[in-house]
Amino acid sequence: MTERSPWATDDLGDLRSMTRSFMERNVAPNVDKYIEQHHVDRDLWNQAGELGLLCMSIPEEFGGGGGTFAHESVLIEEQARIGDSSWGVSLHNGIIAHYLLAYGSQEQKEHWLPKMASGEVVGAIAMTEPGTGSDLQAITTKAIRDGDEYVIDGSKTFITNGSQADLIIVVVKTDTSEGAKGISLVLVEGDREGFRRGRVLDKIGQRGQDTSELFFDGVRVPTSNLLGTEEGQGFIQLMQQLPQERLIIAVASVAGMESAVAQTIAYTKDRKAFGRPVFGFQNTKFTLAEAATETHIARVFVDDCIVKHLAGKLDIPTVAMAKWWTTDKAMDVLDECLQLFGGYGYMSEYPIGRMWADARVQKIYAGTNEIMKEIISRSL
Amino acid sequence: MTERSPWATDDLGDLRSMTRSFMERNVAPNVDKYIEQHHVDRDLWNQAGELGLLCMSIPEEFGGGGGTFAHESVLIEEQARIGDSSWGVSLHNGIIAHYLLAYGSQEQKEHWLPKMASGEVVGAIAMTEPGTGSDLQAITTKAIRDGDEYVIDGSKTFITNGSQADLIIVVVKTDTSEGAKGISLVLVEGDREGFRRGRVLDKIGQRGQDTSELFFDGVRVPTSNLLGTEEGQGFIQLMQQLPQERLIIAVASVAGMESAVAQTIAYTKDRKAFGRPVFGFQNTKFTLAEAATETHIARVFVDDCIVKHLAGKLDIPTVAMAKWWTTDKAMDVLDECLQLFGGYGYMSEYPIGRMWADARVQKIYAGTNEIMKEIISRSL
Amino acid sequence: MTERSPWATDDLGDLRSMTRSFMERNVAPNVDKYIEQHHVDRDLWNQAGELGLLCMSIPEEFGGGGGTFAHESVLIEEQARIGDSSWGVSLHNGIIAHYLLAYGSQEQKEHWLPKMASGEVVGAIAMTEPGTGSDLQAITTKAIRDGDEYVIDGSKTFITNGSQADLIIVVVKTDTSEGAKGISLVLVEGDREGFRRGRVLDKIGQRGQDTSELFFDGVRVPTSNLLGTEEGQGFIQLMQQLPQERLIIAVASVAGMESAVAQTIAYTKDRKAFGRPVFGFQNTKFTLAEAATETHIARVFVDDCIVKHLAGKLDIPTVAMAKWWTTDKAMDVLDECLQLFGGYGYMSEYPIGRMWADARVQKIYAGTNEIMKEIISRSL
Amino acid sequence: MTERSPWATDDLGDLRSMTRSFMERNVAPNVDKYIEQHHVDRDLWNQAGELGLLCMSIPEEFGGGGGTFAHESVLIEEQARIGDSSWGVSLHNGIIAHYLLAYGSQEQKEHWLPKMASGEVVGAIAMTEPGTGSDLQAITTKAIRDGDEYVIDGSKTFITNGSQADLIIVVVKTDTSEGAKGISLVLVEGDREGFRRGRVLDKIGQRGQDTSELFFDGVRVPTSNLLGTEEGQGFIQLMQQLPQERLIIAVASVAGMESAVAQTIAYTKDRKAFGRPVFGFQNTKFTLAEAATETHIARVFVDDCIVKHLAGKLDIPTVAMAKWWTTDKAMDVLDECLQLFGGYGYMSEYPIGRMWADARVQKIYAGTNEIMKEIISRSL
Repeated sequence: MTERSPWATDDLGDLRSMTRSFMERNVAPNVDKYIEQHHVDRDLWNQAGELGLLCMSIPEEFGGGGGTFAHESVLIEEQARIGDSSWGVSLHNGIIAHYLLAYGSQEQKEHWLPKMASGEVVGAIAMTEPGTGSDLQAITTKAIRDGDEYVIDGSKTFITNGSQADLIIVVVKTDTSEGAKGISLVLVEGDREGFRRGRVLDKIGQRGQDTSELFFDGVRVPTSNLLGTEEGQGFIQLMQQLPQERLIIAVASVAGMESAVAQTIAYTKDRKAFGRPVFGFQNTKFTLAEAATETHIARVFVDDCIVKHLAGKLDIPTVAMAKWWTTDKAMDVLDECLQLFGGYGYMSEYPIGRMWADARVQKIYAGTNEIMKEIISRSL
Repeated sequence: MTERSPWATDDLGDLRSMTRSFMERNVAPNVDKYIEQHHVDRDLWNQAGELGLLCMSIPEEFGGGGGTFAHESVLIEEQARIGDSSWGVSLHNGIIAHYLLAYGSQEQKEHWLPKMASGEVVGAIAMTEPGTGSDLQAITTKAIRDGDEYVIDGSKTFITNGSQADLIIVVVKTDTSEGAKGISLVLVEGDREGFRRGRVLDKIGQRGQDTSELFFDGVRVPTSNLLGTEEGQGFIQLMQQLPQERLIIAVASVAGMESAVAQTIAYTKDRKAFGRPVFGFQNTKFTLAEAATETHIARVFVDDCIVKHLAGKLDIPTVAMAKWWTTDKAMDVLDECLQLFGGYGYMSEYPIGRMWADARVQKIYAGTNEIMKEIISRSL
Repeated sequence: MTERSPWATDDLGDLRSMTRSFMERNVAPNVDKYIEQHHVDRDLWNQAGELGLLCMSIPEEFGGGGGTFAHESVLIEEQARIGDSSWGVSLHNGIIAHYLLAYGSQEQKEHWLPKMASGEVVGAIAMTEPGTGSDLQAITTKAIRDGDEYVIDGSKTFITNGSQADLIIVVVKTDTSEGAKGISLVLVEGDREGFRRGRVLDKIGQRGQDTSELFFDGVRVPTSNLLGTEEGQGFIQLMQQLPQERLIIAVASVAGMESAVAQTIAYTKDRKAFGRPVFGFQNTKFTLAEAATETHIARVFVDDCIVKHLAGKLDIPTVAMAKWWTTDKAMDVLDECLQLFGGYGYMSEYPIGRMWADARVQKIYAGTNEIMKEIISRSL
Repeated sequence: MTERSPWATDDLGDLRSMTRSFMERNVAPNVDKYIEQHHVDRDLWNQAGELGLLCMSIPEEFGGGGGTFAHESVLIEEQARIGDSSWGVSLHNGIIAHYLLAYGSQEQKEHWLPKMASGEVVGAIAMTEPGTGSDLQAITTKAIRDGDEYVIDGSKTFITNGSQADLIIVVVKTDTSEGAKGISLVLVEGDREGFRRGRVLDKIGQRGQDTSELFFDGVRVPTSNLLGTEEGQGFIQLMQQLPQERLIIAVASVAGMESAVAQTIAYTKDRKAFGRPVFGFQNTKFTLAEAATETHIARVFVDDCIVKHLAGKLDIPTVAMAKWWTTDKAMDVLDECLQLFGGYGYMSEYPIGRMWADARVQKIYAGTNEIMKEIISRSL
């Protein structure tokens, strides 16, 4: 597990050191507070921006770091390693900024990306609705054109960064008579009239993250807020960006597994039961050997996905494999690790219990694991 | 799942109706509050006592209901059905009161049991220590005899009812030079000098339950607080009572599975995705068919255990089977059900997510599932 | 595992002793020969008939034993215990004879049942066709009425007792324009012209059983060979008898699990590795504790099914649960046991390997386990 | 699955075409015969030798192909692809020849390797004894020095190529007072006096392979038959060669999975049930999506192992991971595939059933999967 990934470079190594120390100093000590308040400190975004940790894979001309997905992976891994799920930075960096980069007008890119890179603006994407899960074509939030404005009505739920976002990409129907073809993405600024943030949702994990409901009640935005050159491109845009979103989850899952296994080896070697270290029992050894094996294999596989993604060659079914399998295995491994901590596995004193509860949602969001299997089956 | 258990009677049916309505009216609406405050309202105990729901399986001469474990099972099941894990009533009823009944002096029984039955006194048992998990022989809390008093020093953790208990059965070493043979059970009243309650522990589930640390710093109790006629009987007493404790967990697990499957069938028949009820997908049907099967089998098995327990014929390895298997299967079933709720499975809006997080600890406490397998293997 | 089943009686105990000794003396020593020749000795049927082991649950007036399904269960269990899969006696006894008893005319019953009870006649049922698996409505073998005869054309496959059967219940379409409603059951004697037995199929297990293809080429039988009073009842008849067929499989599965666990405990206690008995390793102990648990639970569940079946109260979804779950668990348990035998688990020197390969088909026949889940899901 | 492995080259592509056509023409049509006679035709070795398929990874100076493990992998994969388990060629090529290459004297290498490359000599290794499984230190076969000869006494079992081998590397104790340090490897020619081949063992799978018992009754060989320069090196030699043996198994497992998934996709798309292709059911799609995922991941992982092995960088714990995990997953995938074939999955008409039974032993030999977990746990 200490092997260097094939996509690693010396530069990325430096980034990793810097990121690790940021996570350990700026994030880890505050996790309890984030959980208490159900969101990170707003200032954390600015601190990260100052250090260059935001929008690392956005070109320098738009204020980004000029890096690649490899840079984002380092950040994702280091966040997973300390077991934080509060900070929606990988969404901001790896998803929101990339929607803008891929489909935004020159003006939109110049306006928003530098602010996202500095932390002045936090991004979110509002996809899911109370009545729709993974079935995006069924959304009902609509943006009706009225002169040179859209009037947006509807509500969204399960929105990461929902309480802090300054810029929200809203998935809407610009043509309510259509399914997929009627979908567009429209930018909504957080201070628009008629836009309202609901409560932070009470979840069974990821309790420091401000997953929220959002309400749009006759919100008016200029038609220039459309993302892309014409209406009806939203579904295709989503399909194009979802693979990277799913890969982000896979990268986080593997790093979480590695961290959990390392923590559990350390704990079971230290903790004694019936007169010897818990690690000394064959059941512990076999359980950890299995967990270490699946973790190593997941690492090799996800590294292969990253390498392919960096080369622009990662296909949709393979990402779907990565998403469902790593999130599934992460839960298996976390569950076994939690058990080896005994009662302490259920307490928030050690990170393992929270990691377990946090990880559960990964089998559900960004397309449920069932949807992933549908996608894969179509390619067989 | 609607079949009547072989141990059911008409009287128990009446108790079930009454208990169900108590759970629905007095407990369910307050669960959010309990979670907020990390303990149930103290008054809940008295309300239950008034209705005769406390100490149902304790003889009437000691203020109890004169019933059997069947009565307790009804209560356990109805609590599990609404998904409450905050109220430590099955511990109070099914464990603490029975230690007193089995080993208490006539005086102890006459003094404590009627108060436990009315809800005036809440009971707890302090077994686990920070440095010991399922390895009871390794405890270090000691009760040193000084004249006609014991002086108790040590600390305990993971104590259910810890913040409210008025009477605590403390597992101590009366002879620190011995292992199992040095263990005794001593009653400590909640208002004894030197006794201190630590914080309610922050857990990943069962967040409404006041699981606490307890500290004993030179606490003096009269030697008449010893449970049993002589010192050194504690380990045997624990071994004798643990089976019922484990059976209680199995009963709760099965009822939880039944409730989860029923909730999920209802939800998936109602919820639509891709134009049809989620229940209409073969994956949903097969998943629920499997969950329903394992739930039914668990019910048949646990009913068989209850019948045997009522007849005094339930042996230790069979209880160990019931404990590990039902808690394992409960997690499997709850996990599958949660998944079928999609994003809502992860929210506290529906009970399923909390039930999942609550149930996880059942694989750990009352002897980890690994200990159960040890016990079973010795009987092969 | 040595506990007495709730349906056991002293009489059944005597039957069990007798059956066990028959299995050990008449069957076990010949299993290698049966496998070599791909069928049991024809004489085995007559030996069993003489002892009263055939048609035990058929009324005495038709030459049967006057017993119940409990008697059949004893036979099924004792055959499973020695690991024999060659002899299709549970099909003959528990299925073929019961089709005749339930739907046969007085004449048919008087003619065939005494001969089946003596072993003079061996029975089979020809259901599956090369192009149909569990989808019975799709069969194409037809029986066209010609005067007072049926002319049967078609072919069947996977027919147990196919090489030895003297009487075959053939599932046919008497009305080829219909699906389920066109299905009838017709008796075909083994010596009818145009009837031909194909080769015994080469299987990966149950290699001593004469599973065969059967061909019907213009076979003429009198219309009185119809089973039941009118055409088109076949599908309903099959649906009514399949539950008992599935319960038979469940009973055999549980007995196989019990036998496998017992064999493996004995082997691992005897066999040494790395200087101690294989049973001494924690992995062995936990594996066997798990296997023993699932075996015990399967036993409790199947006993409950037997009791309900004897009372005429076993419903179709519950049998479907029993069929898929016990056959699934049997494979899990057999696989774990085989592994604990090491290399010897893969050899035919010990029964465990053959039992494993034999059991695999039970997840497939009598309705695949997938069909079972369909059936269960419809009842939810 | 059609992606090119990172270790593939154009030359290897040519070898693959040639090997594939050899397997399809010379092996596949004869598998039934091999199974019948429990060994391949002796001539198959010579045919393969003529084509250059033997000893491909042995230097040309010793008559080999001058290739690498990549060449062997192609052969292993193509054999697995047709589902043959009869021909012990990967043992001959990848193991026996490499013991000689690594530890043989110049004379031994010049004498034996060219004959092994031509097929004139078939190789075997005699490791396991009736009383020892994975516990090599416990062997009792001994080679006692008598002048310039060794006198060998003992017996071996589970020996692949046992009935045809002309050259057997026998694991013996040259110092019976020692454990691992007393072990040596000695060459025994198949025509030595006192050497006797037992029966071909009756296995539940791999029935075309001549797995045999071997008996050594005062067999005399010159001391120059010792493999290596001094006695007592056997255990180390075994430890050094076992990784490649285990990698061979992993390579075969992955190729088997790929073949099984491809066969099952084809079958379920062709086969109809309930009016539509079996592939059309969601359960089939999900099952195959899962199988395809695990197969792809196993491929990526094993390819990574091969690349590392070619670079001399594959460590022992990683090979142990590859061995247990791929053999475990292969069984899971084969079992799911078999099930989707319905009754035909259990027949030898399609390869899937045999592949399933053949693959089972891979979890046992070359060190059981439990031993693999021990090895991994020591590295944690």
